[in-house]
Amino acid sequence: MNVDAPGIAPDMQGLVAAEVERQVKALREEMDAKLAVLRERTVDDAATIVVFSGDLDKVLAGFVIATGAAAAGLETSMFFTFWGLSVLKKKGAGGGPKSLMEKMFAMMTPSGSEALGTSKMNYFGMGAVMLRKMMRDKGIATLEELVALAREMDVKMIACTMSMDAMGVSKDELVDGLTYGGVATYMADAVRSRVTLFI
Amino acid sequence: MNVDAPGIAPDMQGLVAAEVERQVKALREEMDAKLAVLRERTVDDAATIVVFSGDLDKVLAGFVIATGAAAAGLETSMFFTFWGLSVLKKKGAGGGPKSLMEKMFAMMTPSGSEALGTSKMNYFGMGAVMLRKMMRDKGIATLEELVALAREMDVKMIACTMSMDAMGVSKDELVDGLTYGGVATYMADAVRSRVTLFI
Amino acid sequence: MNVDAPGIAPDMQGLVAAEVERQVKALREEMDAKLAVLRERTVDDAATIVVFSGDLDKVLAGFVIATGAAAAGLETSMFFTFWGLSVLKKKGAGGGPKSLMEKMFAMMTPSGSEALGTSKMNYFGMGAVMLRKMMRDKGIATLEELVALAREMDVKMIACTMSMDAMGVSKDELVDGLTYGGVATYMADAVRSRVTLFI
Repeated sequence: MNVDAPGIAPDMQGLVAAEVERQVKALREEMDAKLAVLRERTVDDAATIVVFSGDLDKVLAGFVIATGAAAAGLETSMFFTFWGLSVLKKKGAGGGPKSLMEKMFAMMTPSGSEALGTSKMNYFGMGAVMLRKMMRDKGIATLEELVALAREMDVKMIACTMSMDAMGVSKDELVDGLTYGGVATYMADAVRSRVTLFI
Repeated sequence: MNVDAPGIAPDMQGLVAAEVERQVKALREEMDAKLAVLRERTVDDAATIVVFSGDLDKVLAGFVIATGAAAAGLETSMFFTFWGLSVLKKKGAGGGPKSLMEKMFAMMTPSGSEALGTSKMNYFGMGAVMLRKMMRDKGIATLEELVALAREMDVKMIACTMSMDAMGVSKDELVDGLTYGGVATYMADAVRSRVTLFI
Repeated sequence: MNVDAPGIAPDMQGLVAAEVERQVKALREEMDAKLAVLRERTVDDAATIVVFSGDLDKVLAGFVIATGAAAAGLETSMFFTFWGLSVLKKKGAGGGPKSLMEKMFAMMTPSGSEALGTSKMNYFGMGAVMLRKMMRDKGIATLEELVALAREMDVKMIACTMSMDAMGVSKDELVDGLTYGGVATYMADAVRSRVTLFI
């Protein structure tokens, strides 16, 4: 205590300091409680992207944004659901026995990231081929490169278990290193995110 | 004052208490003002989904996420605009007199949630029929069940009045229990939401 | 110091006041530091919209929401990427020399906001013509009016430089008054936004 108080006994100074500290402590506790309540209303440095689409162009945009978010220091997660699940399929994985309906669905959905079409001008795959060629010519990362980059940057990839169930897709048909979960898993990440997108 | 403070005279305790109270009161007021400013920069436990699409698969995803958000304790609102308005149409409602343009639009847009097609592989409704059958086979909730669930969970459903106007859709063509509003109504919910999606 | 403390020496009152001030100052500094940490977890009054789509209906929705956000007092930015870049094209701008691939892309993408089709029921442009006519009949703002309104309201429009590069689009093919940037530019706005949408 560096208070300049000539003529006052040092023990009195100590007693005053202790009494003030005791009373100030109550305010600190009150303020800390208010700060804790406010903290519940804030967000983490996180981003969450629902990849619903299975279109090459949209999925590309999703990975460009996801890697951009990770590069900006955000904890990033992608939730692959509905058609987006196709992105996670292993090349050439046949999977277990399927019902007729599941076989029809498997036939009609792409068999991995390299088989995705574009949302526009697909013309029997021409759009996707052109988009891929232009990106290669321009030195822009391909989808497979972006997926690898996202993994390196610790982007969390969640396979929607409800979609897997609906489409009859099993875990061994999907690439490794995934998190499995439903909408509750997605929502747990989304509620604390700064950026939430549906692609 | 129940303090055990040996060596300090009761009148001195009173002096300290009064001075602390005076200065602490000012600090509390200052801090409360700063907390209030900060609170303006926080969010509520809320989620807001724009349902722009009228595709069965996308609308399904919208309701899965909306009910998931409500289940996670978020105050959830859905804003049905453009093609998404079709979801809210009553079965078999003819509506009032329409202009030729409005009739053409009505013919070309689905007449309620049961008539929605999918965004991919629609093949004259086949995609939607298949998707519905697979979901039924797997015990996954149908769109109509999800809509009912969303209502039970107090998900707010807003019909976009600008879209109603543009497409010549009147209130009596839509299901009951809706909120009516434009982009300002949507935005009032969105600005305080943790999760904002456009589907 | 207005404390009523009969029988206590004035120098003691000064001691108490100084000690309280010292401790209160320390608490203020501690609390300000905690508030600064919490502030990092909050958001600005801002909204960020990715315009990925080049469909008239979706782009319209994007501008309705963007102008609605600006009207609600939010600092609003739109990031035009992939097909969304078409919205920013000057009418009749030929641009510089293009590769064959770039020419094919230019032929297949719309040449400005007036040439956009709808995401549904496009029937060789019929959908867009009908949507535009109905909006005109109803006195709803056209896309060009909404773009002008967005500019007046200081909505920031960012042209995605990666997309420009990929599609071989140069700055002189785009309208004036744009910001140029990639996903990092978008992300800088998005992380501090209350509303983040992908359209």
